[in-house]
Amino acid sequence: MPAQFAATPITQLDTPALLLDRVRMDRNIARMRDKIASLGVALRPHVKTVKCLEAIECLAPGCGAVTVSTLREAEELAAAGYRDILYAVGITPQKIPRVQALRRRGVDLKVIVDNHEVAAAVRAGGFDTSDPIPTLIEIDTDGHRAGVRPDDAALLGTIAGGIGGALRLGGLLTHAGGSYECRSIDALKASAAQERDGIARAAAILREAGHRLDIISIGSTPSVLFSEDMTGVTEARAGVFAFFDLVMAGIGVCAPQDIALSVLATVISAQPDRGRLIVDAGWMAMSRDRGTARQPIDQGYGMVCDLHGTPYRDLIMIDANQEHGVLGLRPASAAAIPDLHVGDQVRILPNHACATASQHGAYQVTDEARGAIMHVWPRFGGW
Amino acid sequence: MPAQFAATPITQLDTPALLLDRVRMDRNIARMRDKIASLGVALRPHVKTVKCLEAIECLAPGCGAVTVSTLREAEELAAAGYRDILYAVGITPQKIPRVQALRRRGVDLKVIVDNHEVAAAVRAGGFDTSDPIPTLIEIDTDGHRAGVRPDDAALLGTIAGGIGGALRLGGLLTHAGGSYECRSIDALKASAAQERDGIARAAAILREAGHRLDIISIGSTPSVLFSEDMTGVTEARAGVFAFFDLVMAGIGVCAPQDIALSVLATVISAQPDRGRLIVDAGWMAMSRDRGTARQPIDQGYGMVCDLHGTPYRDLIMIDANQEHGVLGLRPASAAAIPDLHVGDQVRILPNHACATASQHGAYQVTDEARGAIMHVWPRFGGW
Repeated sequence: MPAQFAATPITQLDTPALLLDRVRMDRNIARMRDKIASLGVALRPHVKTVKCLEAIECLAPGCGAVTVSTLREAEELAAAGYRDILYAVGITPQKIPRVQALRRRGVDLKVIVDNHEVAAAVRAGGFDTSDPIPTLIEIDTDGHRAGVRPDDAALLGTIAGGIGGALRLGGLLTHAGGSYECRSIDALKASAAQERDGIARAAAILREAGHRLDIISIGSTPSVLFSEDMTGVTEARAGVFAFFDLVMAGIGVCAPQDIALSVLATVISAQPDRGRLIVDAGWMAMSRDRGTARQPIDQGYGMVCDLHGTPYRDLIMIDANQEHGVLGLRPASAAAIPDLHVGDQVRILPNHACATASQHGAYQVTDEARGAIMHVWPRFGGW
Repeated sequence: MPAQFAATPITQLDTPALLLDRVRMDRNIARMRDKIASLGVALRPHVKTVKCLEAIECLAPGCGAVTVSTLREAEELAAAGYRDILYAVGITPQKIPRVQALRRRGVDLKVIVDNHEVAAAVRAGGFDTSDPIPTLIEIDTDGHRAGVRPDDAALLGTIAGGIGGALRLGGLLTHAGGSYECRSIDALKASAAQERDGIARAAAILREAGHRLDIISIGSTPSVLFSEDMTGVTEARAGVFAFFDLVMAGIGVCAPQDIALSVLATVISAQPDRGRLIVDAGWMAMSRDRGTARQPIDQGYGMVCDLHGTPYRDLIMIDANQEHGVLGLRPASAAAIPDLHVGDQVRILPNHACATASQHGAYQVTDEARGAIMHVWPRFGGW
């Protein structure tokens, strides 16, 4: 196994660096697979969190079905052999040529809409109609973003009826983004039920009107993991479950020790008299995401752990500049600032895995037992 | 002029895209140069905002003196011929080999410290001492981050006295990060005076003790632009002035029409009944920076303008998901949501230019009069 010869001790990495604990990731993926199997639906993992071919191979082995958030992701995956791709951000007429170019390469790329303007513009645009693009209507089951309300039969009918020419009706999609606001297991279960019930109502309306719907797609990591019934659903989408993060831990979806991603940083200034330490990981390494700010426990810019990943009591990143992170204790903490000195290293768990990962060009994949890096997995970005 | 033949209409760009208005940038740079000339100091522009060789050539023509926030920036600039570089984040012993490698290539790379632990560790580390690295002591003139208090004569003496071996004392540096919290011109002037006075006091203490200080370096865009006296200072550092942003406009350092950076986005869902529009630029394109949240006018994730850069009345990005931006009106606005439809494009001014630019791989440099892209300038990132 050549990687054993290439292993770099974690302590020898240039900092800041993005560490990925493969054991935790594999455990998180297994948990999702077990849950999905128990629900009797297909998993269409969302690659927007990982954006890395090696990680996507773990999520969707054998070039399985995937969800993307950009056409760039679709193009990267198409080049790697993936053929069943859903682009889960509302399509615009300007993007149709890139979609059709991928379909001509043999990729069954599907798109979504929540209005009848797109279909009308595509009809007027003179696009090739020989291979209509499967188009899912986006349903808004919790009012948080885009989509058609599931009971709006008139609008559903108008949109479904307007899809034609270079597009063809392929099914329905919803995303329970509101699940991120849940604060209890009961609320998570209710969010999952609302998501399923909403899309089922919309599907019934359209099927009664004679429309054929092959794909009924739902998802968000919290709502899938706490779903108790996916009757009528064909597939579930989720992405952040592979890494998890402090926002997910704050909701109760995982524990901090499930979080597979951390940022390695080095102390550059120790100020025990001011109750703080400065490290060389600021918002450029952590992102500006403050997703836990609205949760019961605000984790600042991240929870600080030692090199083995064990959290220091009450130590978080309380402020961040571009390349400086200020570490300090939670308000009213009785703990002491750990005795760390310039040159010492720490690991910081992120609020939001998608945002923190996107700040880095690659994952340093760790062998935690050996304290070493076994692989470097490059990420892709852009649009 | 070949660029005239390659010009792409702005409306034909794939979205989201990062637009850079060259005319505004040049005007902003000229303003800073005029100010610096009136103060009689040298400008050492900070490249952390632009991270792009073509833009740095505008900031520091002829491979002039520059400031960097990462060693990666120093390495990129060294390869492009820059020789006078200051790395303005506290150095750690682990980074000494990369610094020395650059110095061996003929780069006069300088580092900073705010403690005596680094010098002791470098002494113990057995590094080559044949070309000592010029080392500036960081002074904390406003308590906001790293640095030694300017009146702490004992600590200043200990640090200065401890610098030796592979390091040599090169001067002092401070950064008035507190200037970002100013809310009036008077406060900005006071911040600038405090920054200069603090570093002057520290310099007097060390010179009285017999230390030689060649470089006295201060800076932040607000404090430099509102400084009235830089007596005793040799150089000023600033970075965000080249682009400006809504945080700077909120402080009163610039007007929104000075902001050279914007994100081009396309409407993907129009929901006038809910008072909102959804565009294909979310936090991945804007960043999660909410720097205006603590200012008198909260700009959400950005101020929304038409294709020509004219702001729509009270329209801001009120929420952002990874690839979705939700546009809506400011609280209590009497304005109407503009009549925009799916496929229409808007431009969004960022809260924080450094953070938004870092989300993109390149700048689309515009010719605003022609509504076209004249150049694509790549950015570099990483550490």
